[in-house]
Amino acid sequence: MESSKQNGVIPTSFFSGRARDSRKVLELDRRLLRKLIEGMGAPAIKVALWDGEDVVSNPGATTRMIIHNRISLLRLIGNPLLYFGDDYSSGNIDIEGGLVNFMEAVARAMDGTGQIRRRTSPVHNWHRETFNSLSDSRKNIHHHYDLGNDFYRLWLDKEMLYTCAYYPKPHISLEAAQIAKMELVCRKVRLSGGERVIEAGCGWGGLARYMAKRYGAKVRAFNISKEQVAYAKERARKEGIFGVEYIEDDYRNITGECDVFVSVGMLEHVGPNNYRRLGQVIDSTLSDTGFGLIHSIGQDVAEPLTEWIEKRIFPGSYPPTIREMMEIFEPYGFNVLDLENLRLHYARTLEHWLERYEANEGEIVRMFDESFARAWRLYLCGSIAAFRTGSLQLFQVVFTRHGNNNVPLTRHHMLEP
Amino acid sequence: MESSKQNGVIPTSFFSGRARDSRKVLELDRRLLRKLIEGMGAPAIKVALWDGEDVVSNPGATTRMIIHNRISLLRLIGNPLLYFGDDYSSGNIDIEGGLVNFMEAVARAMDGTGQIRRRTSPVHNWHRETFNSLSDSRKNIHHHYDLGNDFYRLWLDKEMLYTCAYYPKPHISLEAAQIAKMELVCRKVRLSGGERVIEAGCGWGGLARYMAKRYGAKVRAFNISKEQVAYAKERARKEGIFGVEYIEDDYRNITGECDVFVSVGMLEHVGPNNYRRLGQVIDSTLSDTGFGLIHSIGQDVAEPLTEWIEKRIFPGSYPPTIREMMEIFEPYGFNVLDLENLRLHYARTLEHWLERYEANEGEIVRMFDESFARAWRLYLCGSIAAFRTGSLQLFQVVFTRHGNNNVPLTRHHMLEP
Repeated sequence: MESSKQNGVIPTSFFSGRARDSRKVLELDRRLLRKLIEGMGAPAIKVALWDGEDVVSNPGATTRMIIHNRISLLRLIGNPLLYFGDDYSSGNIDIEGGLVNFMEAVARAMDGTGQIRRRTSPVHNWHRETFNSLSDSRKNIHHHYDLGNDFYRLWLDKEMLYTCAYYPKPHISLEAAQIAKMELVCRKVRLSGGERVIEAGCGWGGLARYMAKRYGAKVRAFNISKEQVAYAKERARKEGIFGVEYIEDDYRNITGECDVFVSVGMLEHVGPNNYRRLGQVIDSTLSDTGFGLIHSIGQDVAEPLTEWIEKRIFPGSYPPTIREMMEIFEPYGFNVLDLENLRLHYARTLEHWLERYEANEGEIVRMFDESFARAWRLYLCGSIAAFRTGSLQLFQVVFTRHGNNNVPLTRHHMLEP
Repeated sequence: MESSKQNGVIPTSFFSGRARDSRKVLELDRRLLRKLIEGMGAPAIKVALWDGEDVVSNPGATTRMIIHNRISLLRLIGNPLLYFGDDYSSGNIDIEGGLVNFMEAVARAMDGTGQIRRRTSPVHNWHRETFNSLSDSRKNIHHHYDLGNDFYRLWLDKEMLYTCAYYPKPHISLEAAQIAKMELVCRKVRLSGGERVIEAGCGWGGLARYMAKRYGAKVRAFNISKEQVAYAKERARKEGIFGVEYIEDDYRNITGECDVFVSVGMLEHVGPNNYRRLGQVIDSTLSDTGFGLIHSIGQDVAEPLTEWIEKRIFPGSYPPTIREMMEIFEPYGFNVLDLENLRLHYARTLEHWLERYEANEGEIVRMFDESFARAWRLYLCGSIAAFRTGSLQLFQVVFTRHGNNNVPLTRHHMLEP
């Protein structure tokens, strides 16, 4: 319990719940539940209360939610997008028939209603939350990324890449798809040998290692997660890779000059208010004929993340629309060359992660506790659903400086033969 | 003279000019000229006045502008971006050393100063001018596209495509590059046979013919240029193509249903105020799993077109930034799959057009008059410079409906082997 409290996943007060309610289900309970499910766009699910009888059974339902007590029902009615996650984590809610399928049915229905994410939190000023000062960023990143390298090792690939992989063929392994992703990024920014690269937000350092090993690039890789940087440094030392320097610092403090600027999976944590600042950093470091690549989770339509994800899993994070991303580029006249949407690749990546995660769930429960394990299972399943239904996108944007004519005519060089 | 007046290229009053000034060049003339050239960011050009002596000779200059009289000098000082075009057209200004090179030197310098296009027209409310009501649009399109099919035939390819071609190899012919462009568009929207296509802004009907012939598509192609539609209908009849219906109507009046929505080179004339309206038309016609493609001239940074182009060549037109283009997609939750920038392909296309144009300039002078011929030469040369320097971009955006999972994993299908 201590560990999950530390990580802020579930407030301790919640564990008083997890009770099967022995009280009679009232007609009022059923009426409130029906109204709640209707308000979510009538997803194709069944729902039962603590007496085990289905109250809702919508057409096409293959999954079933059981709400085990009245307090959880009332919390759901108050704020479903926060308390579904909390009450699922603490065991006050169970899902039968597959959590991914359930989340997908719900996501499809809620997508239909459009406004639900905003509607459920009318006073939620989400842009304020993604302001992300230097110290906020450190705290937010620590919350998620410093859960322990041992935890992430259980379900990520060998290179420890915690970003969308690339599946040129649908049935390749996670390991192969992560290597294909790194190769795709290197090809898009036209690495050929010896380039000076700045990487903003390097995770456990996998892409920087790849660029140094495969292309002889000289990479300066920045990250504010202490544990990730320590891991990356140690691993580069062990593998005898000398072309990479890992620096524990914020992207706003990046200086120097580079031929290539890459950022894979950091923008989600930057916050729209800081996009212009990120552009400024790129503008002050990128050479005249350099190339840049930003890889980020995104959205078709500007909406805050589901409150539970934003509060419990990824504090301070926000997936931008393409329009919002342009705030990085336009103020500095950067020239966008290419944009690719890899949405379904992220659904596949998450499926691979979930498979490994579930195979190691016993160990994860031992490392943390059951509610933590359930919360992260929900996060992975919900993310699969979000990418499958299109609530989330994955944008890779390639850019250069305004007027750089040293650009390839076609995109053949981006694709492996 | 009548014809050019009709087409509004140059006001008749201008032809009183074209005089070599016999008056002495004053020190004041020289001082004003130096200030003008400095304000343009000191381009690498030489400039002489009517006595033929160089007043400005900037480092790296390979071209030379001669201003033949004081009235032209004063007009340039008042509004260089309008009157350079007018006075070049009417012969009050001459350029030695190549018009493209000259325009490129000027564009590079002005790009450096950033604000010049706005600065020279402080009260110019350009967004108002691109409001484009139904009747404005008809007038604007008539101004440019109804100059006569015989005119455009002199310098376009055989299929009469008046949009950016695609050069998978740099030295292919214009004809081959236009076919490659049509093939690229068809591949991007995944034509395979029998799809119902709506084309908004079909020019002389080339792409629609290609889609019908090569893919058996059933195309409904819209255009408000009377002459273009008449040409397209006649040509389809002659070639025995039955899969295409050409409709003389505005994109705002498009109804029906389609599997593919394409628009190649129309958005420039739509105006930012109408992007949402265009999105609505797409939303009301595109099938659930359909694909769309918008191909348009664009910009890195939102700025009005050079005033001369906007007034004399393309009234009511505006090249959007990517951010501005998103107003077509985001309000309807369309899902952007892919964006490619073909800027240098347009420079090459224009070089091909210019080559044919210059080879036929004698005939063009006979069809219109010399000032018309000079105006259009300037437009083509200036456009080459704009695409070479990055003042203009060419964006191709592929999209589908929110949540459509029937999308290819990679972009191999877009590229010819």
